[in-house]
Amino acid sequence: MRQSSLFAKTSKTAPSDAVSANAALLERGAFVYKNSAGVYSYLPLGWRIIKKIADIVREEMDALGSNEMLMPALVDKKYLEATDRWGVDVGYRVRGIDEAVDAFALGWTHEEVLTEIASHHISSYRDVPFSAYQVQTKFRNEARAKSGILRGKEFIMKDMYSFHASQEDFDSFYEKTKQAYANVFARCGLDAYCTRAAGGAFTGNITHEFQVVSPVGEDVIYVCPKCRYAENKEVATVVQGDACPECKGVIEEKTAIEVGNIFPLGTKYSDAFNLKFLGEDGVKKPVIMGSYGIGISRLMGTIAEVHHDDAGLVWPASVSPFAVHLLDFTKSGDAAKNAYEALQKRGIAVLWDDRQVSPGDKLATADLLGIPVRAVISEKTGDMIEIKRRNSAEVKLGTINDLI
Amino acid sequence: MRQSSLFAKTSKTAPSDAVSANAALLERGAFVYKNSAGVYSYLPLGWRIIKKIADIVREEMDALGSNEMLMPALVDKKYLEATDRWGVDVGYRVRGIDEAVDAFALGWTHEEVLTEIASHHISSYRDVPFSAYQVQTKFRNEARAKSGILRGKEFIMKDMYSFHASQEDFDSFYEKTKQAYANVFARCGLDAYCTRAAGGAFTGNITHEFQVVSPVGEDVIYVCPKCRYAENKEVATVVQGDACPECKGVIEEKTAIEVGNIFPLGTKYSDAFNLKFLGEDGVKKPVIMGSYGIGISRLMGTIAEVHHDDAGLVWPASVSPFAVHLLDFTKSGDAAKNAYEALQKRGIAVLWDDRQVSPGDKLATADLLGIPVRAVISEKTGDMIEIKRRNSAEVKLGTINDLI
Repeated sequence: MRQSSLFAKTSKTAPSDAVSANAALLERGAFVYKNSAGVYSYLPLGWRIIKKIADIVREEMDALGSNEMLMPALVDKKYLEATDRWGVDVGYRVRGIDEAVDAFALGWTHEEVLTEIASHHISSYRDVPFSAYQVQTKFRNEARAKSGILRGKEFIMKDMYSFHASQEDFDSFYEKTKQAYANVFARCGLDAYCTRAAGGAFTGNITHEFQVVSPVGEDVIYVCPKCRYAENKEVATVVQGDACPECKGVIEEKTAIEVGNIFPLGTKYSDAFNLKFLGEDGVKKPVIMGSYGIGISRLMGTIAEVHHDDAGLVWPASVSPFAVHLLDFTKSGDAAKNAYEALQKRGIAVLWDDRQVSPGDKLATADLLGIPVRAVISEKTGDMIEIKRRNSAEVKLGTINDLI
Repeated sequence: MRQSSLFAKTSKTAPSDAVSANAALLERGAFVYKNSAGVYSYLPLGWRIIKKIADIVREEMDALGSNEMLMPALVDKKYLEATDRWGVDVGYRVRGIDEAVDAFALGWTHEEVLTEIASHHISSYRDVPFSAYQVQTKFRNEARAKSGILRGKEFIMKDMYSFHASQEDFDSFYEKTKQAYANVFARCGLDAYCTRAAGGAFTGNITHEFQVVSPVGEDVIYVCPKCRYAENKEVATVVQGDACPECKGVIEEKTAIEVGNIFPLGTKYSDAFNLKFLGEDGVKKPVIMGSYGIGISRLMGTIAEVHHDDAGLVWPASVSPFAVHLLDFTKSGDAAKNAYEALQKRGIAVLWDDRQVSPGDKLATADLLGIPVRAVISEKTGDMIEIKRRNSAEVKLGTINDLI
């Protein structure tokens, strides 16, 4: 794409109200635009990243055999009343302009909706197990919407729900999902601990969260970097400096960002919606469920927090909006045009900075945007291209083939 | 995909409250699930269709050079107050559970939001023209939500907005978009008339709508099938039986479904948000805008209305959830498994009905689901496959190669 036709203007100064690196750099780089506190637009560059993260998540969920679908954002009162969640404080209420009564909440999670749908689908043991997921805009009335896209009133989430005939079958799927989640975070360039966590509003059971160590995180975790033992503070059995119960490592206390969670739900929702199946033995039994979330927009913010330096963002190639940033310092632009077309022909996503600004401006913008490979064509480079990776200081001369 | 692991159970009977073919067949085929009046879930089969339609729309908008992005569903009061649209009756209002004041409307369109964002991006003539679009869940408080997914309270839309320095540049983009829209509808298997229409709440100018003739449509149009002359009733200069002003054809009155619209916006929104650019002549001028909508979920409903028969749906290949429906009538299932794997290896999207139900059930389900090619493997077919297209009565024996 030609940068001159990209709708997004970068800024040299951070927004005055940004309290975290992700908010400051993502706004300066025109990845996102803040419309209201906790409410963001994803501008074209940021939206390309969201789509890449969502596709990684989809690939891993599809590999589990899960079905993608989409449920409504308008969650009817009837669903939330069935489980006593109509009054949950993070729920937004919706009504028509002249209506006195709220008919809907804005979905922040969809256990109720999918359990009720499943009750029309599941009747026999042959209908389970199955799982379904969606990538959807979700809503939470967050009083402390302050950390950029890490905690918003409106955000993009993947939520998956699974339905099983037995605890053993559920346990097996839960472990497979744990691995799929680890794959997602590793592919996004993040080192996520899988922590034991409390169930929160969803369940009394122990659950698991995926936590990425970062100073802007809101959670406290205790981890052993040696054997990956990890607990959230609220259920912790160890403190900083303890010997890890599973190896000889030393427990460390860290602040961390929660990027995903997996919940055993037991029969809480199947009981509420009378979701039963007829077993092979002719006996009706409740379906055992789990739910599994990944914050897609929060992942983008977390990657920005973990992968940046003073000059700007340093996107991992897997989620970068473009593979190559082509900077043209020549007057004619002919060599850059040839390189641009050659890269496009080979299917390489390239952003060509064809703007009429100084080389210094282009270099600073390239550092800010953080595309993994920078390719400069100037009067000095002749037939060659000056190649530099964003995460390295090394600069070398090469050809188109060295960019691929 | 194996049909046994697909989360979606078809039904032999239509829902009692369905008033249109799209509602009845889409619910019976488990493409969609009705959660509330005008509020639907897209089950896995239906979601595959939505994604296919959305990708066709994306390809055509990208070919126009437009940038994909995503704006918030929570539209801050400040935006709609600036254009006196805070009180528009189709707008839903949002507030927290204990809050007395509505802070947001749920976005049914995004002229205000994008114009304000653009006012931070556009300063010089070098920053225009550009256009941006999103594929997004939209909300309207529809009293008459009754025609399945044709008119919902929550629906999926593509909305695009364009920004220009001159009327001439706008006109040229408007005409190119008209052609891109014609491409979208043709690729979805629809014959859409481009009608002259009134501006409605958006603009006093003449606008254009794309209308597909159907008995369940809510609009009345006057068309000449010979030369494609077409007007909406509310601006019509002709009536049924008139001679078409542009050829010798006879004008016909039709009911039709509006599947898209394109609006010249002039400077209405740029004036409201003080969106100006500095011209090459050093003079500040208002930006000239247009907006362009396509109802993605409505398109799915319209295709269902146009492409069905008494037995079920007849999806055009371009939007079908699968290319081939493989039915297995054998006991061992070996031949079907081989065919399934061979098709998958060649990248053909195949739904394999591996359920333990009768051949009659499988044939009826295949007709209901409407996948373009049906491939039956039975004890009778030997090494061959019985191939039938959903839109033809002809049945013939062939091999895997005849399915590709």
